[in-house]
Amino acid sequence: MAFSEIDYTVTDGVATVTLKRPERLNAFTFTMRGELIDAFDRSDADDEVRAVVVTGAGRAFCAGADLSGGGETFGHGKGELIDGYPRDGGGTVALRIAASLKPVIAAVNGPAVGVGATMTLPMDVRLAADTARFGFVFARRGIVTEAASSWFLPRIVGIAQAMEWSATGRIFDAAEALGGRLVSRLYPAGDLLPAAHALAREIADNTSAVSVAAIRRLMWSGLSADSPWQAHAADSRLMAELGGAPDAVEGVTAFLEKRPAAFPMRVSTDLPEGLPDWPYRDEHV
Amino acid sequence: MAFSEIDYTVTDGVATVTLKRPERLNAFTFTMRGELIDAFDRSDADDEVRAVVVTGAGRAFCAGADLSGGGETFGHGKGELIDGYPRDGGGTVALRIAASLKPVIAAVNGPAVGVGATMTLPMDVRLAADTARFGFVFARRGIVTEAASSWFLPRIVGIAQAMEWSATGRIFDAAEALGGRLVSRLYPAGDLLPAAHALAREIADNTSAVSVAAIRRLMWSGLSADSPWQAHAADSRLMAELGGAPDAVEGVTAFLEKRPAAFPMRVSTDLPEGLPDWPYRDEHV
Amino acid sequence: MAFSEIDYTVTDGVATVTLKRPERLNAFTFTMRGELIDAFDRSDADDEVRAVVVTGAGRAFCAGADLSGGGETFGHGKGELIDGYPRDGGGTVALRIAASLKPVIAAVNGPAVGVGATMTLPMDVRLAADTARFGFVFARRGIVTEAASSWFLPRIVGIAQAMEWSATGRIFDAAEALGGRLVSRLYPAGDLLPAAHALAREIADNTSAVSVAAIRRLMWSGLSADSPWQAHAADSRLMAELGGAPDAVEGVTAFLEKRPAAFPMRVSTDLPEGLPDWPYRDEHV
Repeated sequence: MAFSEIDYTVTDGVATVTLKRPERLNAFTFTMRGELIDAFDRSDADDEVRAVVVTGAGRAFCAGADLSGGGETFGHGKGELIDGYPRDGGGTVALRIAASLKPVIAAVNGPAVGVGATMTLPMDVRLAADTARFGFVFARRGIVTEAASSWFLPRIVGIAQAMEWSATGRIFDAAEALGGRLVSRLYPAGDLLPAAHALAREIADNTSAVSVAAIRRLMWSGLSADSPWQAHAADSRLMAELGGAPDAVEGVTAFLEKRPAAFPMRVSTDLPEGLPDWPYRDEHV
Repeated sequence: MAFSEIDYTVTDGVATVTLKRPERLNAFTFTMRGELIDAFDRSDADDEVRAVVVTGAGRAFCAGADLSGGGETFGHGKGELIDGYPRDGGGTVALRIAASLKPVIAAVNGPAVGVGATMTLPMDVRLAADTARFGFVFARRGIVTEAASSWFLPRIVGIAQAMEWSATGRIFDAAEALGGRLVSRLYPAGDLLPAAHALAREIADNTSAVSVAAIRRLMWSGLSADSPWQAHAADSRLMAELGGAPDAVEGVTAFLEKRPAAFPMRVSTDLPEGLPDWPYRDEHV
Repeated sequence: MAFSEIDYTVTDGVATVTLKRPERLNAFTFTMRGELIDAFDRSDADDEVRAVVVTGAGRAFCAGADLSGGGETFGHGKGELIDGYPRDGGGTVALRIAASLKPVIAAVNGPAVGVGATMTLPMDVRLAADTARFGFVFARRGIVTEAASSWFLPRIVGIAQAMEWSATGRIFDAAEALGGRLVSRLYPAGDLLPAAHALAREIADNTSAVSVAAIRRLMWSGLSADSPWQAHAADSRLMAELGGAPDAVEGVTAFLEKRPAAFPMRVSTDLPEGLPDWPYRDEHV
């Protein structure tokens, strides 16, 4: 199955998803929406993939929704039912990324505007080129912040920063993004993708894939959990399942023997049953 | 209807609410409480108002509850029923501000202590004079953090900073407030109000009022939402309602034509039905 | 009742809990787990104790779970039932600390790794030596982040930082911990414990113990609360109970008389009935 508006490659244990409509600044389309969801289905199913890097082809990351439909662009969306429902398309991508079993690193190489900005929020870490720009421009288009960004953004940058960016709809530079903690680190443009891959390799070289999948689910669902008691219940189930499993035996033994661990377990077959179910799925997703 | 302990003016699309008991450092009273709630009712109902700036007259922002009643000040409050219930008065103001349909900017011109500090927490952005001081002094008075600040403060500054300030009750300066992310930016005293109005104008000049009202509700209720799934459901409803509405058509068209948008919709008449209902209201509010 | 793996001393109103297996870098054991819980029961019950400082003996804070059991260390845990259930041991400590009635200050004097890092998360403030190191190394051992850290960590440092540290399992230095807001301040090693005690004394010298206990519970449960409405309900109950009580009368009177307050109320006997019940307890805790 080939993709038409993204590239998907796996090298050295890392999947790279590249938004690929460079002549349109990688503007987001209904097709791209479906391909992104498929890409994360693919990375989840492939045990070779230990982490996913998302970036853009050419000079932009993603300029937002493709507006070539003109003033009716977002109204037209009303007719595009998803599984029979009028659903926000960006949100379907965001929720799919949130549920990824592999850690996801955004490498924001250029402008990330509208859904181009919000689609990065369910990714784990955002690295950016020092020439990148960002904009939560929805209020300037007469619509609302989408892609579940009202859940993600205030939890990532705080409600004051989230409201300032969303209520003004301003375009801001990489330094403002770093100061507001939207991105973790900035790099000269040429160093960005290597840095993202190096972080992915740091994960791949040192950790159990099953642990990382379980931790990713624990952390994100923990941000949803009512109380630490709920987190403790999940921890207890997972520690009971995994504490005596082959990866834990190998992890502790390798540490004691001061050698690299060779973890035997696989995400495709060995995920613990106690993995929290998040985000809540129903037949509409 | 005239106010006695606050000023309320509207200029150039921005409402300025000024706490106005300068001889008492704008200490908070039962009267001021009611007037603040009325002021936000007024700004919500007035389509000319695109944003609200809150500041203090004279050298203080607000020195906290008026203690002229002496040691019985907070005990006396037991008798002051609100809608028949013994309710925390600061909280009634905080919840009203949280529900504002217009973005709210605090311009903290001087000491903001006790309820003078906590009343700013449901505002969207806090700007401050570099001579401002802050104090969550409740533990020094034998009472508790009020105005729902146990919900707002740890979400704004993190639980560690919230606990350090609340458990010591210390008075701290503007630099500590900035470092702890209680305020977004500091200004020389004379530049503060112009900066607050400039931010308000940045919102007013560029965005749809209906979008901003909906986004404000989405973001704050999103901070309450169980999961991104819940946010996605709200997004989907709002995008279906607003995506084809006049503001979206104008917003996208103006962008494509590279001209300023002239949004036709009004908050007083055109709010989407899908606006999340937050904070939860009942007959007691 | 003497402790064998921790020290517990009370001086000048401050309890100091010292992890004390210096020859094992204070590695965490089942015994230490029980003693830590007992220590917080003791500090809660002792009205002389106004704050608790937790530190490590020797050059480490806590190197994590004692791995002398070898590869079966965490599997062995399956057999160690707690109150009849296979529960995560670190979590039982974390939840106990979260419920403390006295504020808790971590003085991280050296390496804090695994449960040595996660046990500090329910403490209110983390201070560290500039030579301290940290590691959420669970994914390198084939297990998961425990001690309810999936609830605490993303709320303290944000989900991006939480995921980067947890997915890589890297050991990081004090500067990275400070930049990521895991710790509030760094000190030269010799100044750390005095700084922690000075912060504890700032609380003890200026505030009502009952206020601080109630505020601590309000703030942490507020981080769990659905909405500010829920916080407002708790505030209203507590202000009605405490507003006219002896500590409030003394607090306001002393302030008006510009003298230090001498608060008469005691945590052991005078806690308000409206104290929120958090974390949710059931027969298993």
